[in-house]
Amino acid sequence: MNSIGTLFRLTLFGSSHGTCIGCVVDGIPPGTVIDEAAMAQDLALRKPITGIGTPRKEDDVVEILSGVVGGRASGSPLTIIIRNANTDSSAYEKLRDVPRPGHADFTALSKYGADVDIRGGGQFSGRMTAPIVAAGTIAKKMLQDIGIKTGAYSQAIGSVLDWEERTLDDMVHIRSVSPARAADVVIGECMVEEILAVAAEGDSVGGIIKCVCENLPIGVGEPFFDTLEGEISKMIFAIPGVKGIEFGSGFAASLMRGSVHNDIFAVSGNDIVTETNHAGGILGGISSGMPLELRVCIKPTASIRKMQHSVSLAEMKKVELQIGGRHDPCIVPRAVPVVEAAVAITLVDLCMRGGFFATPRVNEPVTPRVGGPSRHG
Amino acid sequence: MNSIGTLFRLTLFGSSHGTCIGCVVDGIPPGTVIDEAAMAQDLALRKPITGIGTPRKEDDVVEILSGVVGGRASGSPLTIIIRNANTDSSAYEKLRDVPRPGHADFTALSKYGADVDIRGGGQFSGRMTAPIVAAGTIAKKMLQDIGIKTGAYSQAIGSVLDWEERTLDDMVHIRSVSPARAADVVIGECMVEEILAVAAEGDSVGGIIKCVCENLPIGVGEPFFDTLEGEISKMIFAIPGVKGIEFGSGFAASLMRGSVHNDIFAVSGNDIVTETNHAGGILGGISSGMPLELRVCIKPTASIRKMQHSVSLAEMKKVELQIGGRHDPCIVPRAVPVVEAAVAITLVDLCMRGGFFATPRVNEPVTPRVGGPSRHG
Amino acid sequence: MNSIGTLFRLTLFGSSHGTCIGCVVDGIPPGTVIDEAAMAQDLALRKPITGIGTPRKEDDVVEILSGVVGGRASGSPLTIIIRNANTDSSAYEKLRDVPRPGHADFTALSKYGADVDIRGGGQFSGRMTAPIVAAGTIAKKMLQDIGIKTGAYSQAIGSVLDWEERTLDDMVHIRSVSPARAADVVIGECMVEEILAVAAEGDSVGGIIKCVCENLPIGVGEPFFDTLEGEISKMIFAIPGVKGIEFGSGFAASLMRGSVHNDIFAVSGNDIVTETNHAGGILGGISSGMPLELRVCIKPTASIRKMQHSVSLAEMKKVELQIGGRHDPCIVPRAVPVVEAAVAITLVDLCMRGGFFATPRVNEPVTPRVGGPSRHG
Amino acid sequence: MNSIGTLFRLTLFGSSHGTCIGCVVDGIPPGTVIDEAAMAQDLALRKPITGIGTPRKEDDVVEILSGVVGGRASGSPLTIIIRNANTDSSAYEKLRDVPRPGHADFTALSKYGADVDIRGGGQFSGRMTAPIVAAGTIAKKMLQDIGIKTGAYSQAIGSVLDWEERTLDDMVHIRSVSPARAADVVIGECMVEEILAVAAEGDSVGGIIKCVCENLPIGVGEPFFDTLEGEISKMIFAIPGVKGIEFGSGFAASLMRGSVHNDIFAVSGNDIVTETNHAGGILGGISSGMPLELRVCIKPTASIRKMQHSVSLAEMKKVELQIGGRHDPCIVPRAVPVVEAAVAITLVDLCMRGGFFATPRVNEPVTPRVGGPSRHG
Repeated sequence: MNSIGTLFRLTLFGSSHGTCIGCVVDGIPPGTVIDEAAMAQDLALRKPITGIGTPRKEDDVVEILSGVVGGRASGSPLTIIIRNANTDSSAYEKLRDVPRPGHADFTALSKYGADVDIRGGGQFSGRMTAPIVAAGTIAKKMLQDIGIKTGAYSQAIGSVLDWEERTLDDMVHIRSVSPARAADVVIGECMVEEILAVAAEGDSVGGIIKCVCENLPIGVGEPFFDTLEGEISKMIFAIPGVKGIEFGSGFAASLMRGSVHNDIFAVSGNDIVTETNHAGGILGGISSGMPLELRVCIKPTASIRKMQHSVSLAEMKKVELQIGGRHDPCIVPRAVPVVEAAVAITLVDLCMRGGFFATPRVNEPVTPRVGGPSRHG
Repeated sequence: MNSIGTLFRLTLFGSSHGTCIGCVVDGIPPGTVIDEAAMAQDLALRKPITGIGTPRKEDDVVEILSGVVGGRASGSPLTIIIRNANTDSSAYEKLRDVPRPGHADFTALSKYGADVDIRGGGQFSGRMTAPIVAAGTIAKKMLQDIGIKTGAYSQAIGSVLDWEERTLDDMVHIRSVSPARAADVVIGECMVEEILAVAAEGDSVGGIIKCVCENLPIGVGEPFFDTLEGEISKMIFAIPGVKGIEFGSGFAASLMRGSVHNDIFAVSGNDIVTETNHAGGILGGISSGMPLELRVCIKPTASIRKMQHSVSLAEMKKVELQIGGRHDPCIVPRAVPVVEAAVAITLVDLCMRGGFFATPRVNEPVTPRVGGPSRHG
Repeated sequence: MNSIGTLFRLTLFGSSHGTCIGCVVDGIPPGTVIDEAAMAQDLALRKPITGIGTPRKEDDVVEILSGVVGGRASGSPLTIIIRNANTDSSAYEKLRDVPRPGHADFTALSKYGADVDIRGGGQFSGRMTAPIVAAGTIAKKMLQDIGIKTGAYSQAIGSVLDWEERTLDDMVHIRSVSPARAADVVIGECMVEEILAVAAEGDSVGGIIKCVCENLPIGVGEPFFDTLEGEISKMIFAIPGVKGIEFGSGFAASLMRGSVHNDIFAVSGNDIVTETNHAGGILGGISSGMPLELRVCIKPTASIRKMQHSVSLAEMKKVELQIGGRHDPCIVPRAVPVVEAAVAITLVDLCMRGGFFATPRVNEPVTPRVGGPSRHG
Repeated sequence: MNSIGTLFRLTLFGSSHGTCIGCVVDGIPPGTVIDEAAMAQDLALRKPITGIGTPRKEDDVVEILSGVVGGRASGSPLTIIIRNANTDSSAYEKLRDVPRPGHADFTALSKYGADVDIRGGGQFSGRMTAPIVAAGTIAKKMLQDIGIKTGAYSQAIGSVLDWEERTLDDMVHIRSVSPARAADVVIGECMVEEILAVAAEGDSVGGIIKCVCENLPIGVGEPFFDTLEGEISKMIFAIPGVKGIEFGSGFAASLMRGSVHNDIFAVSGNDIVTETNHAGGILGGISSGMPLELRVCIKPTASIRKMQHSVSLAEMKKVELQIGGRHDPCIVPRAVPVVEAAVAITLVDLCMRGGFFATPRVNEPVTPRVGGPSRHG
């Protein structure tokens, strides 16, 4: 279904070439400041980047239809829509007969039948991630209010890898100015070159996004099934193009010895820390207090300018396929704010479930207490 | 929480050193054959392997407490328990003060407080996966009934990698006799050597499990959030020790070009296939009809014989820690049937949600139809 | 939370005096005809009735923002909004200090704090039921497509009771022209008189709505907890003003003997029927094939013109309260289409869960089958 | 499905004549005292009452299989089983052909097919409520710990009605000694006489149970759908034999004027109370601080000694039916502790969702805080 979350719940709707895309966010504590400027800023990070992105121009102006009064959440579901301005669907008509390789056209038609909306990818489009980013702004604000900070950046694009440890500050500040959403200016420039080279060939390239979350309190995550890794993964795989996810040491752990992989506990002031963080901040599905670290692999964009082959479903024969429309040669940079938003949304839900957001009624009762004997009669 | 699934729901209970471990499986169609011998066979694959496993001996005899009459599911929840026979908890007493590196002791104590049961890992123990295997036997039977086959094997243990394509037959037949649960006899022997070498040093080693599912019909998986990847990942990360998951090309996709990664559609008889399967059988979160392929990374066992360091929580100072108890130097082989079961359980739920199990009332009405005008008076 | 349903899920948003009210409906099978004219007709039944209703005029024009292409559901979530045109909130300002008796002002302020939107009842307003009616039009269409018919009518308003058995035809046809939404013209006129008499005193009156559903197949409802009664009740109590619900014989059963209450099975043609229907069409939480019958009690409107007392929360003293704004002296007639919609929405979800909607892929495969051996590499 | 609850979740299993009945309770805060003696006491209230109940003798000894260490909840799911000792299923064999009027035999066979277990009512049996009572003991303890008290009693059995206001003390103390579970000794004796008179005729009788909950804090209940009434109703209708539920004034509200029904707010010390409680302690689906009051109607027992008619499904003709087995002429007294348990379980879940149980980590951190910079490398 198109909803996710237990106490903080996101419901997505819309399609790439319909009237609009949007979402309903339920469970926002009343009084939470809803910062539309911050939302616009986060959405700007998701926009196509001049020179290396699709020429599709969407203003992505957020309209809030419900749930906010005077800039603050009212406690009822918050509804966001973003209108689709720039929809030329003509290029998509023949996809009903000739499905694009690497896209959901074929499976969507098979599952939903002829009425499914596949224009621009329909409900499978990367454009559906814009409302996730908008909801993520709210989630990040809620996390910040209890001291939790999140960040994400392009760690690899094609063969350009950034294996340095990056601070959250690097991520947040440099990536805003780096068109590749890198955490280092020079590496970001190399990444842009990689993308331009690939684009020149009419091809596309993938990459890896790293996401970090600091100051997460100990105890976030609900074993056995609603673990930190499990809940985050489910959310992350909703992002089109994701092929894998790993936490901490990840797949490298398969080659390590236990004596190396185990993070040794140590005392640091009044805190207990670990000397390494191969666990990625998670033990037994529960946050350990060390930074949460995860990496997400994004495949090369399925839509490429190069001539490809596919089949005509009507004629059941091989045909050539030249994809028109507007596409990014690399979606990794645009997926950076999406991954960050997705992680933040999941963390808010798990923090609420774990009782990490103090409720107003416990701390500061708003009104006098009702009570007294029953007088029903 | 300890439940997962929408229409086919698994609820786990128990702890490593309590009375028993077990599960409730809800949603099994009445009449489904419950094969206790097959369950025992699957559980045998999860047992410690003589020579390379822990000396803890558990008979793992399944008792079915409810939901089965005459060898067939009755439609009410099926409850399984496996009693814990071999529980010497004395070694775990000091862990409340000195948490083991790489284990959930520290986070469990922080989240749940002093009353949490951490003997033998408590509810975080790998032993909790035995009921998953038992439930998986039921799920695999249900999948087989509609033609779907699943298999899993150790693809890598430490530095011993098996990069050949393996057929489901290889997986299922060879892994039963290979102590390493490999799909190739010779590679399996190398894996055992690797494990023995590591064990001799008092250390442990990780690895990678590959799981494949064939004949999955097109259309399994519910976008936007309840995708095939998302639902499987959430389930897989419940397995202790998992650090990452990838589908199809996985993390390798970050280095590929779109023109290479895109799987080209082709006609094969009356079917549409793809020439490659980098997608791992999934497009847009929905099964494409090509084999579902996924890889899971397992970290080296956290419990090692080697001397380690940790802290005393009471004294807030560094201490030495020598872990006793009984442990596997490599849990990868034992996790193979668990991964297979976890995938099968998730697939059954998604197949039910997608309407791929015909319900008896549609095909073969059991009793005459009740009807007639209202005669309430 | 503001979502309900497992496979057919309704998410409500908006508030009485905000920008709009609306809902997201997830799980509509692609290809389902979305009849906006029928939606408008159902919404017209919920509008204030000239002469006996509030003078608040709302056009209640439905805008569909997503999920429909060419008049048919696309399989992605359907989003409906209804803009609030006629919102004079000035009368609601002092309610933050002086809560209205019988309203949610006091509990909403206590639970959500000062930021809650209580203008016009906010998210607790009866106006929130308009999107339920719109979603109900879709649900009723889906039920009709498999032969299930639903109807509801005012069975009692104040002391005017209609104890005759009414056919679904009576309900559907007469209630459209009866301002009281009665199933009998004369009784409807008496109800209107009752309402006018009460309104003349500045007071309000309650009543009872009966809902019937015919041709429900045997087997709808999921024991133990997701029973037909349980799921319907949960939904019905979301309607503001509901104080009770009963099925079949209902509370009268407390005075009956088992030999009278038991519905005797009988053969009728090829069907099995029962001679009476005290069970209201439900046995063991599952539909029996006899008509589903339920009754819902609605309290007298809380907002009355008469002078009342309340307290000033700021001064903690008794004060007089004269409620302005626009209100119905009886909401029973307007709640009739809401009850019908709520029941239909619940039935669709339970019918989907029970497999009573044939999925397109079972009956009419849309595209050729993908398949073939794995060629990953 | 057989699970209910969001943060405090109950999963039922077993059947009347299987090995056992039982449940899994997930979400119990670690450290909660699990009082097996109190459980036994509550279960004793549900046992057949000598003289007026079925001669089926079940010891109903609770075995706790998991989730408790040293008398306290460990934070992992708590599993309870109650073995079925006294199961003579021979009387149930012919029910597969001749369904009993008023029972779920017919609908269960239609929905689940021939494999369903209908011995003794199978999973539809009133016996399934024993684990609910056991789970209710835990829920009531949790509520008591934050000052909330619950009680229930037989308010009516057949024509014997108790219309007095009863205090919680009356309910709890008198009902334990009253075989009818009445809140008044004399009325209880009249109820027993009513039951005996009906039993002498080989017939059965129904009744009404009232449940009250005091000191519920203001703010429990989650609009729009997860209201106090909605969540309680869904749970209550899982109890076999329930035909209706009403809150506060209930169905009587249909005959009242708004000026009478509205509960006027008043100041009482530092509290705000209402002068009457027609709302039953709920406004807008949220607790108001006044006592929660609800009434549940139970139908006369379907199993009666009197000769009845039914049909043979095999021969499709009318047949006579004499029901053997062991049955209560009135299940109202035995349902009293079940209603109380069901309400308590629902309230705990809603209190947890509303943040009314302070979590240990907020108030009293158990261990030092982990933290420090990322040292992944």
